[in-house]
Amino acid sequence: MQSLRVALGDRAYDIHIGTGLLNDVNLILPFLKKAGVAIVTNETVAPLYLERLAGGLRNAGVAVTEIVLPDGEAYKDWSTLNRVFDVLLERHAERSTTLIALGGGVIGDLTGFAAACYQRGVPFIQVPTTLLSQVDSSVGGKTAINHPRGKNMIGAFYQPRLVLADLDTLDTLPDRELAAGLAEVIKYGLIRDAEFLAWLEANMTLLLARDKTALAYAVHRSCEHKAEVVAADEKEAGERALLNLGHTFGHAIETGLGYGAWLHGEAVAVGTLMAAELSARLGWLDRAAVERVEALFRIAGLPVRGPDLGGDRYLELMSHDKKVQDGRLRLVLLAQLGRAVLTDQAAEADIRAAIAARVG
Amino acid sequence: MQSLRVALGDRAYDIHIGTGLLNDVNLILPFLKKAGVAIVTNETVAPLYLERLAGGLRNAGVAVTEIVLPDGEAYKDWSTLNRVFDVLLERHAERSTTLIALGGGVIGDLTGFAAACYQRGVPFIQVPTTLLSQVDSSVGGKTAINHPRGKNMIGAFYQPRLVLADLDTLDTLPDRELAAGLAEVIKYGLIRDAEFLAWLEANMTLLLARDKTALAYAVHRSCEHKAEVVAADEKEAGERALLNLGHTFGHAIETGLGYGAWLHGEAVAVGTLMAAELSARLGWLDRAAVERVEALFRIAGLPVRGPDLGGDRYLELMSHDKKVQDGRLRLVLLAQLGRAVLTDQAAEADIRAAIAARVG
Ligand SMILES: NC(=O)c1ccc[n+]([C@@H]2O[C@H](COP(=O)([O-])OP(=O)(O)OC[C@H]3O[C@@H](n4cnc5c(N)ncnc54)[C@H](O)[C@@H]3O)[C@@H](O)[C@H]2O)c1
Ligand SMILES: NC(=O)c1ccc[n+]([C@@H]2O[C@H](COP(=O)([O-])OP(=O)(O)OC[C@H]3O[C@@H](n4cnc5c(N)ncnc54)[C@H](O)[C@@H]3O)[C@@H](O)[C@H]2O)c1
Ligand SMILES: [Zn+2]
Ligand SMILES: [Zn+2]
Repeated sequence: MQSLRVALGDRAYDIHIGTGLLNDVNLILPFLKKAGVAIVTNETVAPLYLERLAGGLRNAGVAVTEIVLPDGEAYKDWSTLNRVFDVLLERHAERSTTLIALGGGVIGDLTGFAAACYQRGVPFIQVPTTLLSQVDSSVGGKTAINHPRGKNMIGAFYQPRLVLADLDTLDTLPDRELAAGLAEVIKYGLIRDAEFLAWLEANMTLLLARDKTALAYAVHRSCEHKAEVVAADEKEAGERALLNLGHTFGHAIETGLGYGAWLHGEAVAVGTLMAAELSARLGWLDRAAVERVEALFRIAGLPVRGPDLGGDRYLELMSHDKKVQDGRLRLVLLAQLGRAVLTDQAAEADIRAAIAARVG
Repeated sequence: MQSLRVALGDRAYDIHIGTGLLNDVNLILPFLKKAGVAIVTNETVAPLYLERLAGGLRNAGVAVTEIVLPDGEAYKDWSTLNRVFDVLLERHAERSTTLIALGGGVIGDLTGFAAACYQRGVPFIQVPTTLLSQVDSSVGGKTAINHPRGKNMIGAFYQPRLVLADLDTLDTLPDRELAAGLAEVIKYGLIRDAEFLAWLEANMTLLLARDKTALAYAVHRSCEHKAEVVAADEKEAGERALLNLGHTFGHAIETGLGYGAWLHGEAVAVGTLMAAELSARLGWLDRAAVERVEALFRIAGLPVRGPDLGGDRYLELMSHDKKVQDGRLRLVLLAQLGRAVLTDQAAEADIRAAIAARVG
């Protein structure tokens, strides 16, 4: 097991990464109060891992409430959130009841927001079971649900007390989900770590074969990056926005097609390529660099072209996105491979051209 | 105009108390970004005060969105909150759009929670227009909506950037609402300021006649107490809980009768008397003290007896309340007039007897 700490003062917390962590209740017990825990998970993850976690806690004398939600991004919504509140209130869950998110980013985001709001805040632990959630969504305290008019529009910054990334859970993850997680891993290389980018190019085959040593390295390195950025800029006033490389374009794809058609990581992959195209138009990247990014996404099994929604629709969807500042589109672009910058200087015509180069 | 500051480090803010504040846009302008404001109010307050505030801001060149909600505690719910999100998203409100709550505690609590959640947090200003909201709910950052199973169950701690308490708005407040606000004013005297309690006994007639000088003193003194307590204990880990004197009993009355039958302050008045009765049973207050409290509520025009829901129902409703810690009822009681204490030592039989002494 490897550990690292997210340095957020009195809200600092540890991330543990390794195998067999779900069976090791001693990692969790020190955080619990008498009121016990409510584990929130979904119908796919529950049969695979719920008993492993809940059984161990029960054997240790912890009162465990299980909340099993339907699976899917479409359920990251108010009415599903309300089901969590209903159960918590039915069971008289208290302010010291700890919520545990067992699942991917959907479960993590929704459960984190539930923890932020239930009685104005209860303790919260992340047990991410997808690669994407282990390297990204479980760390940093962004929580949210979707609104029919936009993804993650309703949420809170609310930090967990602990993150347990058990690599064993990745064994059952569908290939497509693994690839989607790799998109975010590659993102760290692109925005701030050219060396890691090269490591990923060299080790992508091992990662796709779910080699535990390679996965441990990739998850650990990714979490280090995320933790560093979050510690420097918890509320996304500055540097944290760089983590949104590819996301403004990507969200347009996700929203344009309707939640769930494309995976988040898939949309981010294409969005990142659109950002790379735009960076090339600004003269920051050369063609070889763009092609290197494309090649890496390709071997990771990710899409490299987006749906043809039309340029107007892309722009409309992108301006709904919350990365708008005073009416201008702010985008994360690449100054070079390994260094991202936030800019509102891209002209609309170039944005349209970059999108057009990557659709259809 | 009098001002005081809520000392919360980088989230510190001013409270201004006085007359004519709604017309003085210069108090608000320094806090606004280019994205403008969305004023949230209700159908009762809008015709009285919305134009006064919105017109001034528009004349100063601020983009103003008006969101007028139906009036009532019953609308402090998810679906009304969602109307606010709908409008904000429709208008493409940004992360720098400032929400302004213009109204009583219902509007303040709901708007504050909307500000806490919209895009994970936007700036927020309180313009309280009831006595209760001026002396209590607008200060301290507790925001919430109700859930069918309990009041204020879903919410956040989220501080405003500024509080403007314009005493002129109290001119149109119904007598019953004025009295309900006085219940919270009296509360500050009871829990931490025996001198203020005596002042209230001496000046209650002036307050009921809405004498501006008396009101200014009462609002200012109340805000000082609230600000002091909140600065010492923002998240209600300790001292802040003392502000809940009468509230656990009071919430049982409000929930038991259905939201809206009794006003919050009315329920708090009776709840406070139940707490005083219980304090007397523990030997902390003598009968004369309990009767002094009763007399003050009476001249303020507040109820002094509660509905007879039955002891079982009271206890059931009180244990749903969030002041439960590890399964035991924690109650705020009076060690003496002017000094409250938080205790979980009251026996169930005494709690039942204190309720019985104050119902029917
Ligand atoms: N909070 C943040 O900072 C942040 C960052 C990135 C993404 N996100 C959010 O994360 C979400 C995407 O997360 P995700 O990619 O984990 O999707 P997900 O939660 O939908 O999980 C993907 C699928 O894998 C299943 N699954 C989960 N664990 C499994 C396992 N171990 N074995 C087999 N199947 C498993 C899930 O049930 C689901 O069907 C999006 O809603 C996105 O907005 C949040
Ligand atoms: N956040 C906190 O710390 C806190 C503290 C105490 C109470 N509260 C909450 O506050 C709410 C009660 O607040 P409230 O007593 O202000 O009730 P309210 O907001 O319902 O207002 C009372 C009535 O007065 C009307 N009104 C408001 N201003 C007026 C004016 N100037 N002239 C004429 N009519 C006016 C309103 O439309 C309403 O009909 C409850 O929901 C309670 O839970 C919150
Ligand atoms: Zn992402
Ligand atoms: Zn109150």
